[in-house]
Amino acid sequence: MSKSYQIIVIGGGPAGLTAGLYCARSELDALLIERGVIGGQITYADWVENFPGFPQGISGIELGQLMHRQATNYGLQTLLAEVTGLVPHQRHNLVTTSEDDFIAESVIIASGSRFRKLGVPGEAELLGKGVSYCATCDGPLFKDKVVAVIGGGDAALTEALYLSKFASSVKVIHRRSQLRAGDILQRRAKMEPKVEFIWDAIVTQIEGDGAVNQLRLKSTKDDTISVLPVAGVFIAIGLEPNTSYLQGVVPLDKEGYIITNEVMETGISGIFAAGGVRHNSARQAITASGDGATAAVLVERFLSLP
Amino acid sequence: MSKSYQIIVIGGGPAGLTAGLYCARSELDALLIERGVIGGQITYADWVENFPGFPQGISGIELGQLMHRQATNYGLQTLLAEVTGLVPHQRHNLVTTSEDDFIAESVIIASGSRFRKLGVPGEAELLGKGVSYCATCDGPLFKDKVVAVIGGGDAALTEALYLSKFASSVKVIHRRSQLRAGDILQRRAKMEPKVEFIWDAIVTQIEGDGAVNQLRLKSTKDDTISVLPVAGVFIAIGLEPNTSYLQGVVPLDKEGYIITNEVMETGISGIFAAGGVRHNSARQAITASGDGATAAVLVERFLSLP
Repeated sequence: MSKSYQIIVIGGGPAGLTAGLYCARSELDALLIERGVIGGQITYADWVENFPGFPQGISGIELGQLMHRQATNYGLQTLLAEVTGLVPHQRHNLVTTSEDDFIAESVIIASGSRFRKLGVPGEAELLGKGVSYCATCDGPLFKDKVVAVIGGGDAALTEALYLSKFASSVKVIHRRSQLRAGDILQRRAKMEPKVEFIWDAIVTQIEGDGAVNQLRLKSTKDDTISVLPVAGVFIAIGLEPNTSYLQGVVPLDKEGYIITNEVMETGISGIFAAGGVRHNSARQAITASGDGATAAVLVERFLSLP
Repeated sequence: MSKSYQIIVIGGGPAGLTAGLYCARSELDALLIERGVIGGQITYADWVENFPGFPQGISGIELGQLMHRQATNYGLQTLLAEVTGLVPHQRHNLVTTSEDDFIAESVIIASGSRFRKLGVPGEAELLGKGVSYCATCDGPLFKDKVVAVIGGGDAALTEALYLSKFASSVKVIHRRSQLRAGDILQRRAKMEPKVEFIWDAIVTQIEGDGAVNQLRLKSTKDDTISVLPVAGVFIAIGLEPNTSYLQGVVPLDKEGYIITNEVMETGISGIFAAGGVRHNSARQAITASGDGATAAVLVERFLSLP
């Protein structure tokens, strides 16, 4: 027979850890399941300056560890496994994982989102050898080198500005002739002398023998091919929600994010969602934590109903 | 002419301070207005155990100060004044205060809520002399004394359980014969030998010469009057939103809380609300902070529109 819990939290980022803290502190029998690293996306953050309460900032890894220790202090259990399915069934929801199956009276989905892949030859092969999705993690490795950033949104310009502190030159490659990023970021990027824009171009291949040394570009205007020598390439074309196991289970928007109301209810009784996996999430550590606490408060109310 | 800002944040609790941090860090010209103490309701919290990132807990006052310093580091300006009115007018919203009037392109309302008053003789006169709204603040002052808690909800029982660590006896006075509090709290309170319940009774007067020494009670069943000797009385009958200056300005629910969608929009262009002032807020420091960050992200998007 499957082991059962009052509450299972899927995902160990700020949303899941805060939900777990609140549930455990409320003396609920709670299990948190994380497939990768405790802390989630925040562990990619070299230094977090905007989590309130830390005026000097804090490393993302340390913040995740502090949150985990706090939840564990109150009795939260943690399992490292991948959730493969969720079958809602009133107070006997089935959670299947790579390790074991579980029954949960209620579930908080906090499985977050992940960086979108470009999907070109060389991307997977050269990951960690010049291909990166996280400037704050890997930027310092490219001191005085030429790097490229792919994308035209806030994330791409944020990455480019951060990289300009290290790299000799930052080429922002965008498939259109206009950025999607906010005005403030655009102004800052355009004022930064190290940042250059390559408009109307897509990357068709990332090349290098053991390490990235050039990108193959194609013009979106006239299909001409060119080659750009770079030592690193940062892919910043957005995020994808980790909801492939939830198709047909909870209401998703067209990008696959979970639709909730303002108290984290999914519309399926006993199933809540929190953090970056939600439609319209501001995708910040602090907003994810807030979501997690709200979901946990609602779970406690849900479980106290007859 | 009134001084103008890109964003005015009303209220200096966790919601307002986090909104202020985010706005200031985004290089917006931001003013936060607080009428009382920076930190808001959290400063009443002796020790905060459930703000993620602080496994050992932190005093509410210190948490508020850390948040304020962090926001100030990025350039947030703070004014101590009472906001008396808000007149929305596209990008020229008028904010009137006890000190001065201001124009703001956008406004985040984070003015929170406050403890509800009983409204009986002696309540105001003996405040701080045995009358309290915050067990975690004042509980330790009543070591080995008899105290009363008024109310029947989660807050009342949480206060009663906390007070049982200090007081010799805790009398919970409730006007009905059944509690509104959650099951877990009810079980815990009924198992605590120091906690006793006085059902179907209301307090009509708080009496004492310089300090509380007794309560006058009236039965809600038969109107009989009795006297209960106590050294302290903790009033835990709920919260009221600080929205009296917002009647007819933004949509409020029937209790006076601001109605927002899940991204803190009030329905009035450029006017956002965050934290305990919102309808359906979980009223936790961490959920308020999350709300504040979400509102700030939306403000930045709003201001970047042409």
